[in-house]
Amino acid sequence: MKASTLQAKFIQIRSNKLFEIFVVTVIIFSALLVGVKTYDASNTNTMVLVTKFLDWFISAFFLTEISIRFLAEHRKGDFFKSFWNIFDTLIVIISLIPADNTELALVARLVRVFRVLRMISIIPELRILLVSLVKAMPQLGYVMLLMFIIFYIYAAVGSTLFGTINPVLWGDITISLLTLFRVMTFEDWTDVMYETMEVYPLSWIFYLSFIFFTAFAFLNMVIGIVVNVMEQENAKARAELMEEEGEPSLKEISEQISKLQAQILSMNSTKIP
Amino acid sequence: MKASTLQAKFIQIRSNKLFEIFVVTVIIFSALLVGVKTYDASNTNTMVLVTKFLDWFISAFFLTEISIRFLAEHRKGDFFKSFWNIFDTLIVIISLIPADNTELALVARLVRVFRVLRMISIIPELRILLVSLVKAMPQLGYVMLLMFIIFYIYAAVGSTLFGTINPVLWGDITISLLTLFRVMTFEDWTDVMYETMEVYPLSWIFYLSFIFFTAFAFLNMVIGIVVNVMEQENAKARAELMEEEGEPSLKEISEQISKLQAQILSMNSTKIP
Amino acid sequence: MKASTLQAKFIQIRSNKLFEIFVVTVIIFSALLVGVKTYDASNTNTMVLVTKFLDWFISAFFLTEISIRFLAEHRKGDFFKSFWNIFDTLIVIISLIPADNTELALVARLVRVFRVLRMISIIPELRILLVSLVKAMPQLGYVMLLMFIIFYIYAAVGSTLFGTINPVLWGDITISLLTLFRVMTFEDWTDVMYETMEVYPLSWIFYLSFIFFTAFAFLNMVIGIVVNVMEQENAKARAELMEEEGEPSLKEISEQISKLQAQILSMNSTKIP
Amino acid sequence: MKASTLQAKFIQIRSNKLFEIFVVTVIIFSALLVGVKTYDASNTNTMVLVTKFLDWFISAFFLTEISIRFLAEHRKGDFFKSFWNIFDTLIVIISLIPADNTELALVARLVRVFRVLRMISIIPELRILLVSLVKAMPQLGYVMLLMFIIFYIYAAVGSTLFGTINPVLWGDITISLLTLFRVMTFEDWTDVMYETMEVYPLSWIFYLSFIFFTAFAFLNMVIGIVVNVMEQENAKARAELMEEEGEPSLKEISEQISKLQAQILSMNSTKIP
Repeated sequence: MKASTLQAKFIQIRSNKLFEIFVVTVIIFSALLVGVKTYDASNTNTMVLVTKFLDWFISAFFLTEISIRFLAEHRKGDFFKSFWNIFDTLIVIISLIPADNTELALVARLVRVFRVLRMISIIPELRILLVSLVKAMPQLGYVMLLMFIIFYIYAAVGSTLFGTINPVLWGDITISLLTLFRVMTFEDWTDVMYETMEVYPLSWIFYLSFIFFTAFAFLNMVIGIVVNVMEQENAKARAELMEEEGEPSLKEISEQISKLQAQILSMNSTKIP
Repeated sequence: MKASTLQAKFIQIRSNKLFEIFVVTVIIFSALLVGVKTYDASNTNTMVLVTKFLDWFISAFFLTEISIRFLAEHRKGDFFKSFWNIFDTLIVIISLIPADNTELALVARLVRVFRVLRMISIIPELRILLVSLVKAMPQLGYVMLLMFIIFYIYAAVGSTLFGTINPVLWGDITISLLTLFRVMTFEDWTDVMYETMEVYPLSWIFYLSFIFFTAFAFLNMVIGIVVNVMEQENAKARAELMEEEGEPSLKEISEQISKLQAQILSMNSTKIP
Repeated sequence: MKASTLQAKFIQIRSNKLFEIFVVTVIIFSALLVGVKTYDASNTNTMVLVTKFLDWFISAFFLTEISIRFLAEHRKGDFFKSFWNIFDTLIVIISLIPADNTELALVARLVRVFRVLRMISIIPELRILLVSLVKAMPQLGYVMLLMFIIFYIYAAVGSTLFGTINPVLWGDITISLLTLFRVMTFEDWTDVMYETMEVYPLSWIFYLSFIFFTAFAFLNMVIGIVVNVMEQENAKARAELMEEEGEPSLKEISEQISKLQAQILSMNSTKIP
Repeated sequence: MKASTLQAKFIQIRSNKLFEIFVVTVIIFSALLVGVKTYDASNTNTMVLVTKFLDWFISAFFLTEISIRFLAEHRKGDFFKSFWNIFDTLIVIISLIPADNTELALVARLVRVFRVLRMISIIPELRILLVSLVKAMPQLGYVMLLMFIIFYIYAAVGSTLFGTINPVLWGDITISLLTLFRVMTFEDWTDVMYETMEVYPLSWIFYLSFIFFTAFAFLNMVIGIVVNVMEQENAKARAELMEEEGEPSLKEISEQISKLQAQILSMNSTKIP
């Protein structure tokens, strides 16, 4: 009985508008703290103490908040069925790891940065945006695979031919993949090309064909997404039009005329005798 | 009575085509003057005098023009309900600030540059274009926020890890944000990467994942705008088609058939007896 | 009488498929000649003589071809009503200018390059493509004007503030416009920025806001074209559907039902008495 | 009789799911082998022996696989009617070339890289993707030709004017074409421009007009593809809607009403007498 009243209270807190605003404020505050710590001035004794205290406050607050959300759930198992609850819980628990010894200090600082990601889970619009981004991913799968095959073949050819010319850029296949990504972003790609053209004067074919292939595949990828998004939008728009305005389909009109026809026929037949 | 005749005269001037052309001419002239002043030759005594005189003429003309527009308004309060009137008035008043003392000379010169912006308020097509650009903004709001969160997290991680390697690029979070913007524009981003890869050989993951995330978010933003603009265009096109050509909706046709059906039924029933 | 038979012969030549192929061949040949002349080897005595002879042959051939086209025209005045005829005639006449004296040699060589442009006037698909490109231009007019105003204001501010820091980049307003175009293409824009940030630490606002404004305006321009092209395509597709398949409009169907209704009514009234 | 049972067995193997997975595994393995060979460590005696053995195993396996596919075909001639069968056979046969002598060693290594391309022929989705990419090509043909003409004219002008300023960039027409491609990718294009501006101060017109023309043509190309892809998608969507949902066309509805009309008329006429 008592647990039930407690739970009711937790549910009340969870759905409180003020509580929500306070949580967002603490998240923004934790983001600012992350930013402040990157300034040199934050290494003075006072600042270290203050940031340490604030860190513990934010950790404690997030832990309390997650606990309230968990306890407010009717069936405790359902809590972990939501991706965003798992996401929040993981971020909060990982950022609890103590980091007093100097070895883990850097790791602890980095982990605390990811508390900023809670901004996404707390703002519904950002959550929707991210879900739609992730949903667009699988459609790109095969184009990505095709692009990787192009990259892989060019990297293999590149490291075979140019490996001895400049080992820093073409030493092995992983370095070559990085160099090719650089060429794709047009970042000083002519420097890379002119260097190999001194040994192989025709190596411009290698670079130009690579740029054409990847640009073309990338273009195809973008068009694929645009077309896909539009198809969904069109389907949605059509469905909405049908439902909202009570607009009948052509099929329904055709059936309406058929009924009319049957009616006239029956009218005809009943009159003759 | 006399005020009324004066106002009628002002209204007449305001709607005069020649007056409009003259205003545009003065704006273009003020733009040219701004350009001329950036040349060294304009620092001779004669030129300084000429530009000073022209400056005062333009200021006086703009003040007169705004006054005419204001006085031509029937209800004086309505004048400031239009954004473009406030915009014009502010630009004209601010550029009136005297700038004889050397301290404010630079500020005064800069302020006069913004008189070129009056070109936007005077040409209706540019005004419509700007309004449509501003209207597209809020739709981008959440994508911009998501992108800022990505930037912020990467900047925090970047200044934590690479702050000691190159303080000029990764010193604190604001400098890191600028460096990340540079990486997003592919501007010598490999120089930034190779430097940190000497200390952390795996730091290419940092750069490549950042490029993928921002490129993907940017792509999504662009697609979002395109889809949105098209939806509006489609809706507009459909509405126009309906209205202009008197094209009935499927619903109207369905109702027409229903009426026909009722008519036949009634015809049938009136005949039986 | 004789003139008429000559004209008939010219018309016959003009519409001859072989003649067309020969003209294209000569144009491609003139393009190759232009390319060959850029090689050092072409400066030997023999080559100079050969290219001179070929040049004269191409000039003579083009002159003959244009004359045939002109004489084949029924009304001579109509010849110059076609943009492409004027275009061809101008190119041919200009490339006739003798260039024996060394002063004009460079100009003569450059003018001969433009004979390659005849490729566009001779291939109908390229002509259509170019016409559609030119047609898309006016729609961009106001966006271009808006962009120029943005460029102009930033160039005026840039040369006022940074003129003394680096006169090579910000000396006067025309140099500043070129520098801003460079910033827009992201070409070593950080070098430009870091230089001015040493004097004005906040000048990154200048560059970032400029990049945002121009990128946004450019994006808008691209979307504008896409939407426009699609609208045209949709309208064309709808019109084709209507005409080709004999698909009636909703209005026609509505009228058809109305007629049916009137028919039943009349049927009804004729029967009652 | 015996040949027939053997063929049945081959068909059985070819359509075996496990066989397919095994082939994909060997292709991935051959890709990894290609990657491993680019590392220096792979030049030890043991590694050379191991990779040599693996190479021979992969070659033998691919040869066996292709033979099975060939023998499983009912009519042997049909085998070479499929582009992908020819593609696979060529890759397998070429990679069989022995490469023991040092001269051909490099060529043999390069040829083995292309075995990775078999990934495309074995995964149906990649095959479809590549076919759709190739199908999009001819539509681009004329835009590509137009772009080449622009490039050619600018290259001819560039090498004529700037050939003496920097022969490395503008020496002859082919080098100029490469330099212009570099300018189009915005790769250090200002360095190229500033160099020629020292001799011809107005040469920025050359670069800016080139960038505008190519950017505009490229934009047109992209829009062309987008519009084309969408048209196909729309047509497909309409066709599907018609077929799947049994949705009638407006024409069919019109005919339905006409029939109704005829029916009423006949009903009318039969009754009067």
